[in-house]
Amino acid sequence: MEPRDVTRSIDLAVIPGDGIGREVVPEAVETLRAALGADAAITTTNYPFGATHYLESGEILSDDDLAALAAHDAILLGAVGGDPRDPRLAGGIIERGLLLRLRFAFDHYVNLRPTRVFPGVVSPLVRPGDVDFVVVREGTEGPYVGNGGAIRIGTPAEIATEVSLNTAYGVERLVRYAFEVAERRRKRLTLVHKTNVLTNAGALWTRLVRAEAERHPDVEWDYLHVDAATIFLVTDPARFDVIVTDNLFGDILTDLAGAISGGIGLAASGNINPDGAFPSMFEPVHGSAPDIAGQQKADPTAAILSTVLLLDHLGMPEPARRIEAAVATDLADRAGAPRSTGDVGDAIRSRL
Amino acid sequence: MEPRDVTRSIDLAVIPGDGIGREVVPEAVETLRAALGADAAITTTNYPFGATHYLESGEILSDDDLAALAAHDAILLGAVGGDPRDPRLAGGIIERGLLLRLRFAFDHYVNLRPTRVFPGVVSPLVRPGDVDFVVVREGTEGPYVGNGGAIRIGTPAEIATEVSLNTAYGVERLVRYAFEVAERRRKRLTLVHKTNVLTNAGALWTRLVRAEAERHPDVEWDYLHVDAATIFLVTDPARFDVIVTDNLFGDILTDLAGAISGGIGLAASGNINPDGAFPSMFEPVHGSAPDIAGQQKADPTAAILSTVLLLDHLGMPEPARRIEAAVATDLADRAGAPRSTGDVGDAIRSRL
Ligand SMILES: CC(C)[C@H](C(=O)O)[C@@H](O)C(=O)O
Ligand SMILES: CC(C)[C@H](C(=O)O)[C@@H](O)C(=O)O
Repeated sequence: MEPRDVTRSIDLAVIPGDGIGREVVPEAVETLRAALGADAAITTTNYPFGATHYLESGEILSDDDLAALAAHDAILLGAVGGDPRDPRLAGGIIERGLLLRLRFAFDHYVNLRPTRVFPGVVSPLVRPGDVDFVVVREGTEGPYVGNGGAIRIGTPAEIATEVSLNTAYGVERLVRYAFEVAERRRKRLTLVHKTNVLTNAGALWTRLVRAEAERHPDVEWDYLHVDAATIFLVTDPARFDVIVTDNLFGDILTDLAGAISGGIGLAASGNINPDGAFPSMFEPVHGSAPDIAGQQKADPTAAILSTVLLLDHLGMPEPARRIEAAVATDLADRAGAPRSTGDVGDAIRSRL
Repeated sequence: MEPRDVTRSIDLAVIPGDGIGREVVPEAVETLRAALGADAAITTTNYPFGATHYLESGEILSDDDLAALAAHDAILLGAVGGDPRDPRLAGGIIERGLLLRLRFAFDHYVNLRPTRVFPGVVSPLVRPGDVDFVVVREGTEGPYVGNGGAIRIGTPAEIATEVSLNTAYGVERLVRYAFEVAERRRKRLTLVHKTNVLTNAGALWTRLVRAEAERHPDVEWDYLHVDAATIFLVTDPARFDVIVTDNLFGDILTDLAGAISGGIGLAASGNINPDGAFPSMFEPVHGSAPDIAGQQKADPTAAILSTVLLLDHLGMPEPARRIEAAVATDLADRAGAPRSTGDVGDAIRSRL
């Protein structure tokens, strides 16, 4: 079978999700459409998955749903999650049943999360410096595998475990990808782990980074414990170029990265299957923010920047750069009264 | 056996350790001595443990060493760890063989780490606000138990695991302690975990916090995922009063807390066995910093603030408050040329 020529048409699955996901995703889709213009056709199929859909239908994501999603070129997701106090949603049932299920089922082993302090954006740091790095987070292993259990639940003798699984297979392919990213950037890579405590996983990660580094003599690399990495993210974030790290550390560091770079409202991410065996999924790092949902208060920029990662992944760098530039210009000019979700989207599109 | 009357004499074990540990600890001991004055006798016994001692003697910490340490009222530790590139020290052999061994052997289940932005201290945050919180970190469970392994090591089929152990026994006693701390403070407690992914451990922690909260109706509590907690530590650290969390999350959050509050050079910690069955251990959060060791460049403030926690633990709040006040005054007046380790110690003692 010939690969589809996605440079002329994109068949996109869209999962707006819950809360502000439903407000930011239409802006992202419209921006994508505007950037592609006459150069490429785009068809979108909306899927209702999320906490709201689950509460209404009892369904999170069936095997048929998975098969339907698998047929698309890529997936754009807004945000999922309902009222955190709703007992029917306890224990991350939606996050795991939908978001993590997709990452695992579609082997999204690269979780790509770029961070930049765009000119004009107010960082909470006094001296952020020239921040421009990308976290290459593992997406299918570590403590995210759901491998653990509990006995004597609810008693004073309860024991609960969580198992972090790390395989040479999984770490090697991620590390290889991270070095390739570093080759295309400033050629600096930092492994973040906790090798002095998590010695088994730590030794595996260290060995595979060291081995891959030999194949990239022009990439300088160093190592930081995860606790030390949080310090540098605050005191000297400009020191980073590519960070490669495990699923859980990557989760923590990328929210922190969003915070120091001026807000999680700007942080985009790609859940990528580089082999192309499954569609990759693009989503803002932020959540569904039920507290501000439905008020057109959400910033669609992170969702719009996620389409940049999507276009790059599909091999369409030209419209990607145009959206990126439009966002940068819009951010540089932000001032005055807060704008609605739609107004930000319009402003970005007007600069394309 | 009568409990020793430590309000009149302190029998202190001192482990300067490596690098700057050897420079900051004498300042801390001298400050302790000065603050106690004629009110209490203090005897100190130095122990040589650390990376340097290990490289010279091949010994990290024997059972006899443990027995000797157990006889003291408390332990003051500087920092341990040698050259990170030395292969003889790989895999955290000193950190685990010494620091973690002591925490586990002496059942230091409370790892107490206060954070304050002292007046005069320059935070890397534009608007830190009135930061004054304490992290109550679990010290004897979680992913720190060394429970994991690897098979097919060094091959492309390697699998490495890390197991996080969580017991009702261990979590309940920590949570109880944390609520008691909250009662004596601003009565706000935040549980930090990752309950949407680590569902087994997450359910245990949530259940025990909820149960303890019923016994403290005047303490308001909330919950944050660890990733979200890092955002708030940067955007609104003043929102926190008491954070209760697991061993690994606590490790990460307290380094971040040190960074946002103006430097890991000010962060003190107590490894506490509240039951008094074993001596508790007090140490600055910072490491041995081999790069600046031996140059009198290290700030002894974190070590000196660790003696405040030590005095409080031994039931001597009066000299504790005096050291704390002296540090606060010294910090408020810091300006001009950087001072040597000894000069900072002298300055703090002159303000007692
Ligand atoms: C919702 C949650 C399961 C998810 C994660 O932990 O990966 C989120 O925090 C993220 O970073 O995408
Ligand atoms: C040295 C290391 C084992 C230790 C830890 O992870 O607990 C340190 O980072 C700390 O926070 O005291």
